[in-house]
Amino acid sequence: MKKTDWYTEEWAGEGSAISLKIRQKIHDEQSPYQRIEIYETETFGTLMTLDGLVMVTDRDNFIYHEMMSHPAMFTHAAPKRVLIIGGGDCGSLREVLKHSTVESAEQVELDERVTRVAEKFFPDLCESNNNPRAKLHFADGIQWAADAKPETYDIIIVDSTDPIGPAAGLFSEAFYKNCFKALRPKGIFVGQSESPLFHAKLIKSMRQAMTTAGFSEVATLNFPQCTYPSGWWSATLAGKGINLSEFRTPAPKNKAVVTRYYNPGIHQAASATPEFLRKALM
Amino acid sequence: MKKTDWYTEEWAGEGSAISLKIRQKIHDEQSPYQRIEIYETETFGTLMTLDGLVMVTDRDNFIYHEMMSHPAMFTHAAPKRVLIIGGGDCGSLREVLKHSTVESAEQVELDERVTRVAEKFFPDLCESNNNPRAKLHFADGIQWAADAKPETYDIIIVDSTDPIGPAAGLFSEAFYKNCFKALRPKGIFVGQSESPLFHAKLIKSMRQAMTTAGFSEVATLNFPQCTYPSGWWSATLAGKGINLSEFRTPAPKNKAVVTRYYNPGIHQAASATPEFLRKALM
Repeated sequence: MKKTDWYTEEWAGEGSAISLKIRQKIHDEQSPYQRIEIYETETFGTLMTLDGLVMVTDRDNFIYHEMMSHPAMFTHAAPKRVLIIGGGDCGSLREVLKHSTVESAEQVELDERVTRVAEKFFPDLCESNNNPRAKLHFADGIQWAADAKPETYDIIIVDSTDPIGPAAGLFSEAFYKNCFKALRPKGIFVGQSESPLFHAKLIKSMRQAMTTAGFSEVATLNFPQCTYPSGWWSATLAGKGINLSEFRTPAPKNKAVVTRYYNPGIHQAASATPEFLRKALM
Repeated sequence: MKKTDWYTEEWAGEGSAISLKIRQKIHDEQSPYQRIEIYETETFGTLMTLDGLVMVTDRDNFIYHEMMSHPAMFTHAAPKRVLIIGGGDCGSLREVLKHSTVESAEQVELDERVTRVAEKFFPDLCESNNNPRAKLHFADGIQWAADAKPETYDIIIVDSTDPIGPAAGLFSEAFYKNCFKALRPKGIFVGQSESPLFHAKLIKSMRQAMTTAGFSEVATLNFPQCTYPSGWWSATLAGKGINLSEFRTPAPKNKAVVTRYYNPGIHQAASATPEFLRKALM
């Protein structure tokens, strides 16, 4: 599988892999937390991997970042305070800050090096890092949620790596309870919830843990994501006393939230559940 | 990239590739038209490739076959005569025959060997081949459409390989004109239309050619398909004087059409168009 001019990620336990043709590796460092590598690919633009797993490519990250942010942002009536846990490439932060209601968007990333490297190699994703409404913290998001004052945030977005290693705690009931507490009434939690094809059991357990943690409603949204395992990904929303099936449609002339994937039709569509997943989530 | 215990398909021109871990190759033949190989994979069940390209795996073919058939079948008021061009693995034929309105489903596959090999290695996909309503022809689908009597079919499904080599003619305006003629009033044409991420230009040209050929309406449906290029695929429908945005919802107690991906919500959702694609199709 390995050849020097291809980057290959084996999708662990799934007997499958994706490869991207690379022109050259342009950065490689071991941070205190993980190995950060940057490649120039042939057709996917710049690629960042963490410990050998694809985090972001220029070509397809817009789908993930838009779907991690806009569905929740348009479901909330007027999100003012937003917390992003993880999200070190700053792509979700950028999307959140497109919303004019936002007064403060705090990002809590464990590994400052991820953000510094992203600032250098993904300048478009980081274009809002110096926005006065943005606050970048480099700290443990699990602890941050535990320490948060009750009813602080309108939206909490967990833009994390897979549920292994340091990110495992971001998929736990204890963490969801702290987030529930830290959310204001009618607040929304969003967590990346892996592949509908590969990880239906994980999605089910996340939804159950969210419900046990106190959330009144959960909704899993599906979307394509070429460079993530199976090419198909999901975000699971949990609401604190808010109906997740209704959302605001911005006026057609409101150009504030410019998107490449998201639109109201896509938002509605993402919540449709395939038969096999509907049964797996029962 | 190549290693003996992995099957790798390079996505031509896209600097990317998918690999499936294989236990063994269990069949390999050169038919008059193409090389047909069958592998036993580690996690995707049986895999068939034609000239080195993934056609079908046990694990994910249900999405493709259901989306190639049920949206059109449920949009038509009562489809009786169905023509499938290509589709040699017989998976689309099986889905079509789940509809009790169907009196005749003809399949016109160029390469009889594909069907014979599928009958041996994908018995579930071929379970309806002996249904009295099924008629298997082994012939050139392009010629078949040219020779068809006018107003013969309610649905024509083109379940083809990529628009290169012998399948290229299945993406041409001349072919669409013949299909238009062969369809009854309120008939529906369905063509597999490649990846929304990789092939937006092709989708646009297909839609334009369909319109020029006489179809009153076109609709592109998107769906995940892990083992096809980009992991995201599409089918484009063209209607002969029929509204493609309305479809029948089977009564919940009607168990005739058992599906694993398709349901009415998914049907509606598949027609949502991402922003970048909406612009690309203008």
